[in-house]
Amino acid sequence: MIIVMKKSATKNHVDFVINEIESKGLKSMQLFSTEGTIIAIIGDERIIDQNHISTLDGVSRVILVLPPYKMVSREAKREDTIIKIKDGVEIGGNTIQMICGPCAIENYTFVSQAAKSCKAAGVNILRGGAFKPRTGPYSFKGLGKEGLEILQQVGKEENMAVVTEVIDVRDVDLVYKYTDIMQVGARNMQNFNLLEELGKVDKPILLKRGISATIKEWLLAAEYIMSGGNPNIILCERGIRTFETETRYTLAIGSVPIIKDLSHLPIILDPSHATGNPSLIGPLAKASIAAGADGVMIEVHPCPDKALCDGPQAYTPEKFSQLMKELDPIAKAVGRKF
Amino acid sequence: MIIVMKKSATKNHVDFVINEIESKGLKSMQLFSTEGTIIAIIGDERIIDQNHISTLDGVSRVILVLPPYKMVSREAKREDTIIKIKDGVEIGGNTIQMICGPCAIENYTFVSQAAKSCKAAGVNILRGGAFKPRTGPYSFKGLGKEGLEILQQVGKEENMAVVTEVIDVRDVDLVYKYTDIMQVGARNMQNFNLLEELGKVDKPILLKRGISATIKEWLLAAEYIMSGGNPNIILCERGIRTFETETRYTLAIGSVPIIKDLSHLPIILDPSHATGNPSLIGPLAKASIAAGADGVMIEVHPCPDKALCDGPQAYTPEKFSQLMKELDPIAKAVGRKF
Amino acid sequence: MIIVMKKSATKNHVDFVINEIESKGLKSMQLFSTEGTIIAIIGDERIIDQNHISTLDGVSRVILVLPPYKMVSREAKREDTIIKIKDGVEIGGNTIQMICGPCAIENYTFVSQAAKSCKAAGVNILRGGAFKPRTGPYSFKGLGKEGLEILQQVGKEENMAVVTEVIDVRDVDLVYKYTDIMQVGARNMQNFNLLEELGKVDKPILLKRGISATIKEWLLAAEYIMSGGNPNIILCERGIRTFETETRYTLAIGSVPIIKDLSHLPIILDPSHATGNPSLIGPLAKASIAAGADGVMIEVHPCPDKALCDGPQAYTPEKFSQLMKELDPIAKAVGRKF
Amino acid sequence: MIIVMKKSATKNHVDFVINEIESKGLKSMQLFSTEGTIIAIIGDERIIDQNHISTLDGVSRVILVLPPYKMVSREAKREDTIIKIKDGVEIGGNTIQMICGPCAIENYTFVSQAAKSCKAAGVNILRGGAFKPRTGPYSFKGLGKEGLEILQQVGKEENMAVVTEVIDVRDVDLVYKYTDIMQVGARNMQNFNLLEELGKVDKPILLKRGISATIKEWLLAAEYIMSGGNPNIILCERGIRTFETETRYTLAIGSVPIIKDLSHLPIILDPSHATGNPSLIGPLAKASIAAGADGVMIEVHPCPDKALCDGPQAYTPEKFSQLMKELDPIAKAVGRKF
Repeated sequence: MIIVMKKSATKNHVDFVINEIESKGLKSMQLFSTEGTIIAIIGDERIIDQNHISTLDGVSRVILVLPPYKMVSREAKREDTIIKIKDGVEIGGNTIQMICGPCAIENYTFVSQAAKSCKAAGVNILRGGAFKPRTGPYSFKGLGKEGLEILQQVGKEENMAVVTEVIDVRDVDLVYKYTDIMQVGARNMQNFNLLEELGKVDKPILLKRGISATIKEWLLAAEYIMSGGNPNIILCERGIRTFETETRYTLAIGSVPIIKDLSHLPIILDPSHATGNPSLIGPLAKASIAAGADGVMIEVHPCPDKALCDGPQAYTPEKFSQLMKELDPIAKAVGRKF
Repeated sequence: MIIVMKKSATKNHVDFVINEIESKGLKSMQLFSTEGTIIAIIGDERIIDQNHISTLDGVSRVILVLPPYKMVSREAKREDTIIKIKDGVEIGGNTIQMICGPCAIENYTFVSQAAKSCKAAGVNILRGGAFKPRTGPYSFKGLGKEGLEILQQVGKEENMAVVTEVIDVRDVDLVYKYTDIMQVGARNMQNFNLLEELGKVDKPILLKRGISATIKEWLLAAEYIMSGGNPNIILCERGIRTFETETRYTLAIGSVPIIKDLSHLPIILDPSHATGNPSLIGPLAKASIAAGADGVMIEVHPCPDKALCDGPQAYTPEKFSQLMKELDPIAKAVGRKF
Repeated sequence: MIIVMKKSATKNHVDFVINEIESKGLKSMQLFSTEGTIIAIIGDERIIDQNHISTLDGVSRVILVLPPYKMVSREAKREDTIIKIKDGVEIGGNTIQMICGPCAIENYTFVSQAAKSCKAAGVNILRGGAFKPRTGPYSFKGLGKEGLEILQQVGKEENMAVVTEVIDVRDVDLVYKYTDIMQVGARNMQNFNLLEELGKVDKPILLKRGISATIKEWLLAAEYIMSGGNPNIILCERGIRTFETETRYTLAIGSVPIIKDLSHLPIILDPSHATGNPSLIGPLAKASIAAGADGVMIEVHPCPDKALCDGPQAYTPEKFSQLMKELDPIAKAVGRKF
Repeated sequence: MIIVMKKSATKNHVDFVINEIESKGLKSMQLFSTEGTIIAIIGDERIIDQNHISTLDGVSRVILVLPPYKMVSREAKREDTIIKIKDGVEIGGNTIQMICGPCAIENYTFVSQAAKSCKAAGVNILRGGAFKPRTGPYSFKGLGKEGLEILQQVGKEENMAVVTEVIDVRDVDLVYKYTDIMQVGARNMQNFNLLEELGKVDKPILLKRGISATIKEWLLAAEYIMSGGNPNIILCERGIRTFETETRYTLAIGSVPIIKDLSHLPIILDPSHATGNPSLIGPLAKASIAAGADGVMIEVHPCPDKALCDGPQAYTPEKFSQLMKELDPIAKAVGRKF
């Protein structure tokens, strides 16, 4: 932490700041320049409250040198984290995982058809929403527990791992029973009480990036879960909100190499929710894999025009099967496989 | 709803779309232009799922004509909503309400000192957080129930209404007991299960705008609460996330006249959280009132340098008392009073 | 400038960086912490190229302590700059200046009618565009020289100063002859060659903020002009581009106190272009003055429905005259006058 | 164009709007719904001024059905545009073109070394800036004409086409003489006078996207050039400004399939300027090609630590040669070649 004092700061101001720092057991150094005094903290600045220091008399600016997260950082662990989902299925290793299925679980038939076609195309993880966060109060909100039962049953029948979103802290135990991976949606990325509950769980968490969350805030949300005791976190970039209106969100594929640089956690991408437009999903799925993603999440529905949620962005099984054939050489080109 | 068909759409495609619309009891009209067929829906388009129509063969684009919310709209109710908080204190009428106090409830003494000074300066509503959503897992998270007790006690002692945030659906009943207004923070604006619970409550809700929520999404969140049975909603603009980094957020003061145009609900502003910088809070509080806001939320703390949360942005009682004197002529200039 | 070295940096790396700094005549200090070496530059860091230092081996991050602009900064000049426009008309002092007139100069009659009504309402500066930057190639682009002649003539007749935009470096001399203030539009804020030419001119420059320019970049653009020799710069906030689509741009009224803090230059606001909606312009004009703006720019047109450019956002003379009556007590409330 | 009338609109209001439309030779249809009257224009709405219609009494909202550009649209020309640069070098066809070289032209030696190594790695187009737009007035601004001479000479020696930016309308003729492709930088994307001049030129234009330009505005800028007579436009996505600060800009790779859908023009990507960080450039170059880009622009410099501009983001010849080997299988995976 670098503390820039105002030109007008007195020796008393400087001494008070230094005293605050040293009272936490850290050391400091002073630099005297023509622009005023600068105080540098020697040691792990994260135990000092930046906001508190900012309020002290004579302080102009506080600059952080270290990132505010620790356990999820690449510095804390050099090697990539590989998360075991079930026997033979892991995320973060050499195999790229596809996570596919309908947006919402509507009935057994649709989920089963989607799962069979995905499995046949090489997919190991089935997705489906039992609880749907909807922006308006007049939309379909999911089947709840019945949806979870369908998802679990189809997962067993097709020998696929399953992932579903938990949107309410009160549902953590319920969702835990039925799923292999628990998903935190973009709107809940800073639902800190939910993150805390998921820190106590022994199943992997798929943590979507909030639509206006910085990468720093996203990694801090992961730190919340990890510091609670759960190290198995899969990050998922799903598009950020920008001024552009041609697509719903802007998929920030650059997140892949940035996360690989800053953190040891695996990262997947969700071009379906980012764009809401199947003609964009294929090219962006290819781009995601080429950029180094550990997986891609794509919505597949046997009858998109009958879907109760986000039908327009779903792939039909036929088109999805064709996409998988096109993704295969991209995976090989970056030295990976499905 | 206007449905633009592709140039390549066949008569069968058009007939199928029209059939879908009419099966919902609505009427439609066709327009044939050189650019292709356009279908217009006559009636309340909100019962038609825009996404579903988008998936149908031959459809190029779906354009909404009506806003997606109803009950909160100015069309649903022409006159301004005035919300009674307690005897002699209402929001949305001719009196501008100041909502002031510390960011977090730290102890009885600080809250009591803040309340006394605010009351003396003419403030009727005391704010203070018992549960604090913090971006990192290593920060002070609030006193919880003890904080609620302090807030209620000080409110009674100073004859002030109190407002505090509820961040967890499991705390709705608890918070309800201790407070006059229940606040939904920016991060929970789309926590739809929380909004649903607050729709069942008979106390006013202060609904902050999410940092990347459009005005449409914000009004839809209010619609969630109102459609659940609670019509007493106070909107609070607290800054949106933009590319600018000189301040934490960009306070969109234009929200005031926009909301007044689109909705009958009262709107207040929170320049403290928007800027995090007291030298900006005063000018923006004045601007808020000049623009027509029904209230302003400002953090006041007896000892900002000892605050456990957001100290740097808090006003001292002395500076706040001075600010109130400067706000008074602005209120008069727009025909209102404190 | 603070240079954070990588943990893996060697003594040679550190020595090389220090040598680069000292070769520019600056001093440096080293800090050794558990997180690695930090090098602080003592002196005016602005003569060191941040990008160059970033490329050196072993460097992790470069943090600037000083802002990149100098002459426009509040540190360079404590007292507010007051710019004389013509006898009895200045910007930046106690008098708030309104700058009004049509978006585009269409003919003598419209400009004259607009000017007469504005003058009667107390306006001293007339605006009007002779060259219009238009997003599409099929729109009206202004009358050019003929427009400048009309503007100058009407200005003389009504004894008003005039301001018009220069959009092409080749027109600087031409525009110079006909106007009292030369305007740089938002799209040209980083047209550095144009800024350079305007640095050589002895008339005030009205520099609009680019729609996605940070405040730092905006002040750097002003620095371009000032370092060229022209100290008379009026900053104009006209809205930034955000994700919100209810209005064309988001007027960042917070720019007023931020600019007053960072710079000695006057700042005005343009709510007309920011919102494109007259029902928002009035409230935001009031807010601008309450926040401390030195002036407000508002489009006034005698026949908005016949305007060739931006008609929808123009005030009629009658409505504008009413607005001026409402602005007057706001100005008084902040200790200023028209 | 769909015109939504206010509920309160009278028959006179509606008749007036219809008359305005028909006076332009277009037809209209009226729809009467419970929500008010809707007027639809039959024919090419682009000859009607949307803003003008918005000002008419009784009009609530105007909705465009067609995009505002014509000549650059996919509808105007179904097949992809392939632009011939020089013998054996074209952009937009099956061959992916790499455009590489230093950010700024500093001297013959650096450019020649960069060119030789790029050519050896398979690059056909050499880039280099003779005029540099710099955000601050105190930075290196390019060698001007001398730089153009160096670039042309090296291009001839290595048998490479050359591209350089023109930042001033006064330099169009000069730059024309020395280059094969004329580049419009992001800051000039809406410098309409420059676009007009380039519409008269018979050399290809590389049009970079403005950092806050929507795709619609970008295509309108291309329309400016094409409507002036120059159909040879190469679009270049170089990152947009968002709230994220880990990278300078957010490279919107989704632009590739969007542009391919909306327009017939070729599109390339510039990950160097988007990220400013070589560890991100490689993954994003791969992603660009996988998404279907027609080319990639990458900065290569023999001595990045001696570069006068943007050194940190430049590849060394060795690293670039390695990157080309990694890009090759990606190109093959999408059925293309270098």
